[in-house]
Parts: sequence; structure tokens; C-alpha cells
Amino acid sequence: MSLELKSTSKCFDGWQQRWKHQSTSLNCEMVVSIYLPPQALTQKVPVLYWLSGLTCNDQNFVTKAGAQEYAAKHGVAIVAPDTSPRGEGVANADGWDLGQGAGFYVDATQAPWSAHFRMYSYIVDELPELIAESFSVDPQRAGIFGHSMGGHGALTIALRNPEKFRSVSAFAPICAPTLCPWGQKAFTAYFGEDRALWAQHDSAALLATTKLAGPILIDQGMGDEFLAEQLLPEQLERAAAQSGQVLALRRHADYDHSYFFIASFIADHIDFHARALG
Amino acid sequence: MSLELKSTSKCFDGWQQRWKHQSTSLNCEMVVSIYLPPQALTQKVPVLYWLSGLTCNDQNFVTKAGAQEYAAKHGVAIVAPDTSPRGEGVANADGWDLGQGAGFYVDATQAPWSAHFRMYSYIVDELPELIAESFSVDPQRAGIFGHSMGGHGALTIALRNPEKFRSVSAFAPICAPTLCPWGQKAFTAYFGEDRALWAQHDSAALLATTKLAGPILIDQGMGDEFLAEQLLPEQLERAAAQSGQVLALRRHADYDHSYFFIASFIADHIDFHARALG
Repeated sequence: MSLELKSTSKCFDGWQQRWKHQSTSLNCEMVVSIYLPPQALTQKVPVLYWLSGLTCNDQNFVTKAGAQEYAAKHGVAIVAPDTSPRGEGVANADGWDLGQGAGFYVDATQAPWSAHFRMYSYIVDELPELIAESFSVDPQRAGIFGHSMGGHGALTIALRNPEKFRSVSAFAPICAPTLCPWGQKAFTAYFGEDRALWAQHDSAALLATTKLAGPILIDQGMGDEFLAEQLLPEQLERAAAQSGQVLALRRHADYDHSYFFIASFIADHIDFHARALG
Repeated sequence: MSLELKSTSKCFDGWQQRWKHQSTSLNCEMVVSIYLPPQALTQKVPVLYWLSGLTCNDQNFVTKAGAQEYAAKHGVAIVAPDTSPRGEGVANADGWDLGQGAGFYVDATQAPWSAHFRMYSYIVDELPELIAESFSVDPQRAGIFGHSMGGHGALTIALRNPEKFRSVSAFAPICAPTLCPWGQKAFTAYFGEDRALWAQHDSAALLATTKLAGPILIDQGMGDEFLAEQLLPEQLERAAAQSGQVLALRRHADYDHSYFFIASFIADHIDFHARALG
């Protein structure tokens, strides 16, 4: 596996970089961003994986969240992958909630999606290996977080892989995709009618029967235009109560679904992960 | 004068907003962004004007600089206007360094530019009046700052209007536009051969014969791809020495011309203005 540097910019004494590489799980060229804090020059640092939401690529978080300041402060790297496979040979759909930009962090089983849409394998296996062999990060101290569709990705991946991702948090996650229009549309396309597969990628369903050793942090804006129909945090809250999972679900008056909301609370999330990862 | 709200998002307990209005100086519809810190709910707050660089509109700074955190901390509003008049009836050029997105904060005297390109009047007179009558800001406590072309704008406008803008700082400003390709191209188009007009919009030329009561803060990345040919901070340094202006010109190894550089030092700038404006 090899990475090719696309750009690098000094940022808060560390480096914000974009790399491209040929992905074996996705069978296409991918772009991934990484922030390397200044501490990474002299030691292996903890690494956070950020999963973005619908329509995003690797750049939205990197340019808008203001995370680098706190990554530098705590000495953690942040990897921001794209949200789906990309390119001319990759299947797509007309809407912005399916296909390119909308991978939902699953391995699709249905044509035409199954040829490339294997974001679950990419995030859980391929990308962490690539990052560990290419940068000064400690793969034993990895956390995961994300926004909206990426919050769904972070929660489901952490719940299913607690040995690989030791801390998890989310902003306005899609908490129960099997119960909301975005999730039902995507899962129907990617999985067909296999409801057992659906349940494996629904964090509320997963959390009802399992729990993590550490707490989960979730921030949710109460002015979020997608809250009632698509996000359903009350489903996650109910499941956490059922399994005994410690869940800090913070509801914030007036905040919407945008990166202005994420930026407002990103410091808390990086602090949360840095404490968990030591 | 009336403003129409385009969007509003809660951000660091304040509000990040976009407004549109019909500009009399520019003779077209303009969009302007403002961040209102939480303190503006109960008192009139100091106000900073941010002038962006070539190709930017009102959104680049708002989404990428991470300024809201520090504006909220210090209780200052930040107004981010567009960089030129816009629209179908407005003159334009093929390049990205002239015409729409490249107003250079001057009042053009030459056709076809003179019909709309009056950014100097817009920033110095029209916009501050509009902001003062529409928001909870104190026009007696206004500062100005900017990046690249906007750094040029901030410096020239502050040097010529010290009673209106009581503090000034810049990131990687074009310090001597009469001596660099960007400035020469723009001033030739906007002013023709009237070199007296050119000199009125060159901060190094202005600073050689005048000085401000307070200090000027400038940050410059030494990995900036435009430093040697376009920015010429040494010209400003020389002029400051000549007039006795206190100038803190900080050179930072490796930093480039991007918003990753701006974000890295924005806290210092807002702190600088907040102290000056009391």
C-alpha cells in the first residue's frame, strides 16, 4: 500500500495533509486527510478517526470544525476519510442521500453497490492499517467520532469493534437508521431486504444488547432540522438504559445540524477522546 | 437601508448570520456575514471588520478561520463582507485576480469598473452605517483586519481612517500593491495611470508619511507561496521604521497562505483588537 501526498499545510504547529491511495476494499482511488500534531514528530500519538456526514468528503471537517487547535493541544492525530468510494467507474444515484457521498459506512451486498461500496471494511480494517504503517500514530490508542451519517458510522463501528476503537463520540448521529427515511433508503439499496444485516448497522439496535467499557458522548442541537425525522436520539437513549451503557447525551438549545454546531463543541470531544486514550 | 436574513446558526452561544441588502455604493445586491457574540444580546459590543482575499466571498472566513470561539470569548462582533460587487450586470474579467472576487477595496475610476467597483466607500462608509443601525454594536469601537488582498484593504483603510477603525491587523497582506503584479494589474484596470491614486491605496507608501496611534499586528508565513513576489512585507517594515509606526511583524516558519495559517493565529488577532477596543 502506498500513499501519495496531495497537499500539506502547517497548522497549529503540526501539519494538515491530504493523501491519495488506491483502496483495495473500495477498489478505487481514495483521498484521505490527516492532521499530525507537533507531538507526532517525536512520538507515536493517539489517533482519532472522524467520519463525515452525507454529501461530505474528507475536507469538510478539516476546514470547518476547528479541530486542529485541540488536536495539537492534546497531541492526537485526526484522520478524516471520504464518505464513500468515488470516481467514474463507481455506481451513483440521483439523490444526495445514496451513492457517492453517502456510503453509510457499510459493506453493500446488493448490485450495483457491492462492487465498490465497502466503507465498513475500509474504515475498520484497511485504513487503520494504512495509517499505522505510514504515520507516527499508536494503533492501540484509536478512537472514532463523526457527524450525522458519520455519527452513525462511528457508533456502529465502535460498538462492533471495541478492541480497535477504544473511545467513541458523535455529533447529531443518525441513531436508528432502520427506523428513519435516510437509513431505510440506504439500507434497502445496499442490503436489500436482509433485516439481520440492517440490525448490525443500527446503533440503537446494537446498543440494546451490548455495551462498551467506556462512556459514549453525544451532542445534539435542538434546532437541528433533521432531529425528529432522521436522528432519533431517544432510541439510543432507550437502548443505553436497557444495556446499562453510560451515555452522555447533551441536548443544546437552538443549535442546528451545521459545522457551526460541531465547531462549538469540538473541544469537548477531543478532550473526551484524549482522556480515554491516555 | 434594509437587510434581509438569509441564514442564522447558533455558534459558540452567539449567532453566525448571513444577510443580503441592496448596496448604494456598489449599485448591486450584496451578501454580508456577521457573527454576534452572546454579549450582544444585552449590550453594544465592539465590532471587527474582516476583509477577505482574492477569490473569496463572505463565507471563507466564517467557515474556516475558527474566529467565533474567540469573538464569543471577548464579546466582539465580526462582520465579513464580500470582496467585490457581484451579479450579472457587474463587470468581470477572465482571471481570478481582477473583477468579481477581486475588488481590492478601492473606488474604481475607470470604465467598465467604475459603475460598481466602489469597495472602499462600501467598507469605509456604507457598511459601518448599516451595521450600526441594524445590530447591537458600538461603532465607536471598530477595528479592521484581513488576509492577503484583504490585509491590504484593512491596512490602507485603517491608515486613512483612524477615527473610524481604531485597531488594525493583517495576515499575509499585500503590503505594496504598486510594486507587485497583483496590485499593478488591478490598479491599472481600476485607476488607469493616475499614480497619485495608486499611492493612496498602497499601505507601504501611506505608512512612510503617516502613523497610527496604536500598534499594527501582522502575521506572515515563511512558507507562503506568494511572499516574495506579491506580499513584500519588508516594504511595510521599512515604511514603519521611517514614520515611527509600532509594527509587530511576526514571521512564522513553514506556514503557507491558507486558512490553516489564519486559524493558527486568529486567537492572537482577536485578543489584540479586543484589548485595543476596550
